Amino acid sequence: MDGASPNVVWQHGSATPADRAASLGRRGCTLWMTGLSGSGKSTIALAAEHALLAAGLPALVLDGDNLRHGLSAGLGFDEAGRAEAVRRAGEAALLVAASGAIAIVSLVSPYEADRARVRARHEASGVAFAVVHVDATLAVAESRDPKGLYKRARAGELERFTGVSDPYQAPTSPELRLATDAASIDSCVAAVVALAQRLARPE
Amino acid sequence: MDGASPNVVWQHGSATPADRAASLGRRGCTLWMTGLSGSGKSTIALAAEHALLAAGLPALVLDGDNLRHGLSAGLGFDEAGRAEAVRRAGEAALLVAASGAIAIVSLVSPYEADRARVRARHEASGVAFAVVHVDATLAVAESRDPKGLYKRARAGELERFTGVSDPYQAPTSPELRLATDAASIDSCVAAVVALAQRLARPE
Repeated sequence: MDGASPNVVWQHGSATPADRAASLGRRGCTLWMTGLSGSGKSTIALAAEHALLAAGLPALVLDGDNLRHGLSAGLGFDEAGRAEAVRRAGEAALLVAASGAIAIVSLVSPYEADRARVRARHEASGVAFAVVHVDATLAVAESRDPKGLYKRARAGELERFTGVSDPYQAPTSPELRLATDAASIDSCVAAVVALAQRLARPE
Repeated sequence: MDGASPNVVWQHGSATPADRAASLGRRGCTLWMTGLSGSGKSTIALAAEHALLAAGLPALVLDGDNLRHGLSAGLGFDEAGRAEAVRRAGEAALLVAASGAIAIVSLVSPYEADRARVRARHEASGVAFAVVHVDATLAVAESRDPKGLYKRARAGELERFTGVSDPYQAPTSPELRLATDAASIDSCVAAVVALAQRLARPE
């Protein structure tokens, strides 16, 4: 028994996802946007949030960078730090989605195993989950370099930078793949919005 | 600069609470229920969630015990462990509330400083926050002992159990105080629901 367990008793009784769908007329869900820095995750996530809100659907972007200032403050970028950052983002998204909203996570989340754990947590809770691979080649993402991070990584100023000095494991079976180096931003946003609306529809 | 900072750039652009209120016709908020084990926090929180959902308002209980199995798994019950558990619950509630839902946190959260930090985080984000002190005397809470935890704490099986071997700092200025050893459960639930509805109303 670990150190946290003795004082803990599981509480039952919160409304189930089915109860919520019946009361609210929609289902919450999580869209998990993974991809290289500069692939377009945040741009697409924020535009999709805007479009969904305009349609009266509660959507919230959980941005990896912002979470590093809040829920995940203090975590590193080594494999363990990234795993824990993905885990916490996943737990937070699960709560947002459980409340009936559309959680749009925008997070590099380079490791397949970490993403698979988040999916398993959602499935165990009966909350819909979809991976969106925001897929640009490294060359394209690096040429955009919206935050100047690739330049700093190439200069050796940033350690363990995904795509440069750390691996990116592309998802093997994402629900949606957006080739942002070929498709327009608008068409990518439209695809994300359509996926969210489909998942949010009560069955 | 700490270890987490170099790779982090703050993202702007997510909808503001005012934008959301305009789109959704309601404001998200956090109700923070603090009190001794056995004071009635979870009972009241779950009944309030049920009533709010029945009224078509998305509400979600974030239960301290459940969070210990998820977002806060592995944390201890010493002062640092409790502070971090309160911090993570606060960040998760802030995200749920930011999405437009009513986050109802049910957590012993015995230290005033920890609760004050959560309030400050909400205020900085423009998200409504209210403390509900679920107030039963230790004698009453211990006589209920719904999970058998007081008995185990008195037998020395649980360390640092709030009220027995660890302090509880009552909130000095809660938005709502529920004397659950005097008032009926129904009247307590009604007060919580009324508070939530008031905070959720768009201005």
